[in-house]
Amino acid sequence: MKIFIGADHRGFELKEFLKKRLSFELEDCGAHFYDPNDDYVDFALRVGIEVVKDDNSVGILICGSGAGMCFAVNKIKGIRASVCCHPEMARKAREDDDLNMLCLASDFIDKELALEIVKSFLNSNFKKEEKYLRRLKKISEYENRNYSFN
Amino acid sequence: MKIFIGADHRGFELKEFLKKRLSFELEDCGAHFYDPNDDYVDFALRVGIEVVKDDNSVGILICGSGAGMCFAVNKIKGIRASVCCHPEMARKAREDDDLNMLCLASDFIDKELALEIVKSFLNSNFKKEEKYLRRLKKISEYENRNYSFN
Repeated sequence: MKIFIGADHRGFELKEFLKKRLSFELEDCGAHFYDPNDDYVDFALRVGIEVVKDDNSVGILICGSGAGMCFAVNKIKGIRASVCCHPEMARKAREDDDLNMLCLASDFIDKELALEIVKSFLNSNFKKEEKYLRRLKKISEYENRNYSFN
Repeated sequence: MKIFIGADHRGFELKEFLKKRLSFELEDCGAHFYDPNDDYVDFALRVGIEVVKDDNSVGILICGSGAGMCFAVNKIKGIRASVCCHPEMARKAREDDDLNMLCLASDFIDKELALEIVKSFLNSNFKKEEKYLRRLKKISEYENRNYSFN
C-alpha cells in the first residue's frame, strides 16, 4: 500500500509531525515549505491523482478545517474522501465506505489525536459486504455518467 | 435561502430532531421513514441536485460517519461538501471555503451538538476574499475540464 500525503500552509506543521511519528512510509506531495499564499486545491489534486492510479494507494490531506481539501479532492473520479475527527470515525469510514482519502482539520484536532486518527485509518480495511459494494457502485455509475457526458 | 436536508437510516433520527428544533424551514428530501436497507447515495444525490439549482441554496446530509454522504454528494458539479464536528469548523468552512453542503456524522456527535453545528453553518456567510475565490475557481476549472472530456 502506497500512502501519499499533502497539506497547505495551515496543515504543513501537522504533516511534518505525522511524517516523523508514523511508522508507515509516506510519499510527500507538498507543501515542501511553509508558504502562507499556497492553495489547498493544488495539493488536493496532486495527491488525489496519485491515489487513483492504484487501487492499493490511499492519501492523507490536511488543511485548517479539512473542508477545502475534502471537496476539492472528491472531484477526482475514484476518490472517496472525508474529514474524520475521531479514530473510530476513520475506522468506520474505511470499513463501511472504502474511504481512500483521509482529510484532517489541523485547526480543530491536536497532533496526538491526528496521529491516532491516521493510524486507525491505515490499520483498517474495507469490509466487502454486498450493501457497501452496492452503494459504491451507485457512485461509480454517477461518476461515469456525469464525467463523460455532462 | 432554501435549505434541503437528507439522511439515510443511520441519520434518520437526527434529521427528524433537527426539523423539530431548528427555526429555519427545511425541505426534507428523505428518508421519510426508517428503512435499514436504504442507501446514503440516493439521498446525497437527491439533495445535491436540488442545491446546485440555485446559488442561494444549501444542504444538510446525515449518515453514520458522514463519509459516504460527503464523497457521494461532492461528485455533483458545484457541490462543496464536508463533514463538520464542531460549530466553529462549520463556520470556518462556510466563511473561507463557501461550503454549501454540511455533512454530519450521527454516530459521533450528540443531537444538541449537531444542532449547534447546523446553526453555525446556517448563520455564517462566505467571505468573498480574493484568495478564497482563487481557490474555488481552480476547483471549478477542474470540474469543467473533467466532467466534460474525461
